[in-house]
Amino acid sequence: PSAAAQAEASARNDVLTKPPGALGRLEELAIWYASWRGNACPEIKAPQVIIFAGNHGVVAQGISAFPPEVTVQMVANFEGEGAAINQLAKLHGAEMAVVSLELDRPTADFTQGPAMDAADLNAALKAGWEAVNPESDLLVVGEMGIGNTTAAAAIALALFGGEAVDWVGRGTGLDDAGVARKAEVIAKALQVNAPQGPMEVLRCVGGREIAAMAGAMARARVKGIPVILDGFICCSAAAVLDRLVEGALDHCVAGHQSAEAAHGRVLTALGKEPLLSLGLRLGEGSGAALAIGVLKGAIACHSGMASFAEAGVSDG
Amino acid sequence: PSAAAQAEASARNDVLTKPPGALGRLEELAIWYASWRGNACPEIKAPQVIIFAGNHGVVAQGISAFPPEVTVQMVANFEGEGAAINQLAKLHGAEMAVVSLELDRPTADFTQGPAMDAADLNAALKAGWEAVNPESDLLVVGEMGIGNTTAAAAIALALFGGEAVDWVGRGTGLDDAGVARKAEVIAKALQVNAPQGPMEVLRCVGGREIAAMAGAMARARVKGIPVILDGFICCSAAAVLDRLVEGALDHCVAGHQSAEAAHGRVLTALGKEPLLSLGLRLGEGSGAALAIGVLKGAIACHSGMASFAEAGVSDG
Repeated sequence: PSAAAQAEASARNDVLTKPPGALGRLEELAIWYASWRGNACPEIKAPQVIIFAGNHGVVAQGISAFPPEVTVQMVANFEGEGAAINQLAKLHGAEMAVVSLELDRPTADFTQGPAMDAADLNAALKAGWEAVNPESDLLVVGEMGIGNTTAAAAIALALFGGEAVDWVGRGTGLDDAGVARKAEVIAKALQVNAPQGPMEVLRCVGGREIAAMAGAMARARVKGIPVILDGFICCSAAAVLDRLVEGALDHCVAGHQSAEAAHGRVLTALGKEPLLSLGLRLGEGSGAALAIGVLKGAIACHSGMASFAEAGVSDG
Repeated sequence: PSAAAQAEASARNDVLTKPPGALGRLEELAIWYASWRGNACPEIKAPQVIIFAGNHGVVAQGISAFPPEVTVQMVANFEGEGAAINQLAKLHGAEMAVVSLELDRPTADFTQGPAMDAADLNAALKAGWEAVNPESDLLVVGEMGIGNTTAAAAIALALFGGEAVDWVGRGTGLDDAGVARKAEVIAKALQVNAPQGPMEVLRCVGGREIAAMAGAMARARVKGIPVILDGFICCSAAAVLDRLVEGALDHCVAGHQSAEAAHGRVLTALGKEPLLSLGLRLGEGSGAALAIGVLKGAIACHSGMASFAEAGVSDG
């Protein structure tokens, strides 16, 4: 981020025609975005939404309310522009990319051993890295992958500790017995794999789409592209980066808090305050894409408003 | 509202390509909007933002951090498209109207007697009623009026009871002594005027822009135009309607919860859950205008998504 752009944006914010602080979080959002873009008066003209799709061997353990075929079916729905994320991307003028990661070759069932080998992990990270359009000025990464709230919960348990039950939720619609089963599954996954360090956690109990999200967020940081974080699965990918490098998520803002129970807990661990909290639990980047509107609002005010001097308004 | 459109929208919501309920509040928002538009598959194409401006005799009591000249200066800023609300209206494609209500003739100081006589009140209600574009499909009403958080607090105290201190806040930037002064002022206003009934409350301790907002919201209801409520002052106007006719705000959704302390209390009294809570406290309809993006997102998903059958996706 640019300290000069940040200082200039902050100075600009102080003279806009409003009482000091009256735009609340919109003010800090605008200054944060300006610092990452290196521009005190930025615009959001080219947001990108990337959806990564992967399949999970752990579905053999009966941890999802939907069958695994839904992953490829929903990819077709993304490509046919029929999903929620398509509508939200279009509303906010975002370019949308869909990246399928070997859907016919699911990760291994991580209750039996590592989900991925080193080559699989690297390929997924690279796919994420390469999917980012370096000309974009805002990034949302979303996912589709039946079974992936279980992978995300296993990652969270491995990175943050606590009890397995702290990190499991209903996913796309499990009943209480299913949730209990999911807790057993992630506890067993960590016993079997005992991963050491964030990247090993990602390899052993993550998934291809989760690794790809991490790769994309890392690339965005290098390119100075701010990221809006989506829900539980996106934040599990982000958490891997956070534990790997301090401050790795400074270019990220939490778009929303989802209804998936453990998401709020992950956000707290990451020190991120969500912009929205509307009970979404869909994934596919939908909560983050909805929050593009809030960030666009912040930037529109910051870069478009008149100063007290320009408008001839008394400043109190 | 149309029960048929509501039922049809609800049935449509059940078959869209997402787990049931996964879009959280966006789903209820879409069904609510559909019912008021009488269209199960609606679009938002013509939002209107109206800013009403008024001046307040009670500023003589020293209850504002800004001088009263700022009202007319900010009206010029709205007309010059330099204010926050201009940027947010433009972002969301909203038509914007600015209605000044006799700025050179402030209401009377309501610590001495009624703010308005019956003719003044009626003229302001009528100005609000007539400012609504009947062809619009969504309405945001905002305000500008130095001193108007004091009027709003007096209305809230009169309608909802409690102690004066429960309803006062910092407005555009009062210190603790200023807030205490404001509480004394509204307590005195109610002693002096002792208004009986919601319309008398509005006349005695309200203001022209507050009455105009009430008039506009009432007109919107008659025309089937959904309203996004803004902050404390907008909600004080809405509260008058609510206490006058049960269900008078069924066509309204709370856009945000502002940082003005008593706003959350008014929302609770009105039974409205805010869509956003980002610490805004600017007025001018800014929080509600920001929330247009959330409502547009809800409608875009509802009306644009494919069904399970259309997309060939298994529904679990």
